[in-house]
Amino acid sequence: MFKTRSWERLWEDLLIGYLDEDLLPVLIEFFARPRAYTLSSCSGRITLSDSTYPWSREETSIVFKKHGPVEPVEIEDVLRHPVVRRLWLNVVGPIIHVSARDMDEAWEILRIAREAGFKHSGLLSVHPAKGVMLELRTGVRMTQLLALPGKRLHGREELESVVAVANEILGVGKERLGRLLEALRSNRPGELDPLVVEDEAAARWLG
Amino acid sequence: MFKTRSWERLWEDLLIGYLDEDLLPVLIEFFARPRAYTLSSCSGRITLSDSTYPWSREETSIVFKKHGPVEPVEIEDVLRHPVVRRLWLNVVGPIIHVSARDMDEAWEILRIAREAGFKHSGLLSVHPAKGVMLELRTGVRMTQLLALPGKRLHGREELESVVAVANEILGVGKERLGRLLEALRSNRPGELDPLVVEDEAAARWLG
Repeated sequence: MFKTRSWERLWEDLLIGYLDEDLLPVLIEFFARPRAYTLSSCSGRITLSDSTYPWSREETSIVFKKHGPVEPVEIEDVLRHPVVRRLWLNVVGPIIHVSARDMDEAWEILRIAREAGFKHSGLLSVHPAKGVMLELRTGVRMTQLLALPGKRLHGREELESVVAVANEILGVGKERLGRLLEALRSNRPGELDPLVVEDEAAARWLG
Repeated sequence: MFKTRSWERLWEDLLIGYLDEDLLPVLIEFFARPRAYTLSSCSGRITLSDSTYPWSREETSIVFKKHGPVEPVEIEDVLRHPVVRRLWLNVVGPIIHVSARDMDEAWEILRIAREAGFKHSGLLSVHPAKGVMLELRTGVRMTQLLALPGKRLHGREELESVVAVANEILGVGKERLGRLLEALRSNRPGELDPLVVEDEAAARWLG
């Protein structure tokens, strides 16, 4: 029941543009496993946050968000606004939340994830109905303090160097996502979930 | 057997100065739980690495390491040397590796860790003899790109601001470690491990 609901939500999210396209084939591979499905996930992104710490989630702290490479001019635009707390550039690699029906499936998914370079993955919790919750993540990330109230920390040229490295790191995360897709495909269970196989729009992503 | 060996190693590490003193009372609390013990752990630290990415572990990439606050002059000293790849300042909060004898103990430790703000914690693996391996970590971290080959990215004054924020973030990590110590103390099992209780030097840390 939870899996079917999550499956429907995935296609709704895709329609309304909530779902990052880079992520779709990977999510479909998880749903194709009869004993697994995914929950909220991210293919990796670059954000700017006006927050005390890079991990803070104070209200409206995220002032810019993009799932692809950024241009220095996009950052310069944000830098023209006053900084309230601290302005951070944050890059995070992909993060995927998976529910597995039992421990065997959970450990198998963890093994596949490690093989693909998702080295910071682990089991988060066990729920009687929702199964074992896993978080799959890489160590691919970067933060950079760009400005304090009234004070930029980089000149224009230095900022360009920072942005180039941030984009490169975002790309490393996307590569890992590609490796995860390959690892899932070469470790498919014997039977695939009819939910995916019998869905024409989804099945063509099984490659 | 594995627990006793790890316990002996803890005291050897302390003697040779390998063990960070901030960590000792927390590790002793874990050993006092009859069904748990810790493996390599860190109370949080600031490093400088000359590496392609902040997470890279290329040989000799770490050029500076400290478990306490740093002075801007310490960073300036490193900046006087030529940069080969990229010079990163990295701050990480505490990371504790725990082995639990069974799943019940593993989930209980995970619950305590979450309560103390170790939100990025999870189960890493299960080993028939060594038990369930957990990694307990916070989201407390920061990276800052300081220099590229032949090019500093901050002036002296901007670097001082960066160092101040890095020290503050290291402090946030140490606070979380203090919360973990409190959470472990208020969630002690009914009986404590004789390994710790009967060890005079250790038992005085039980507070």
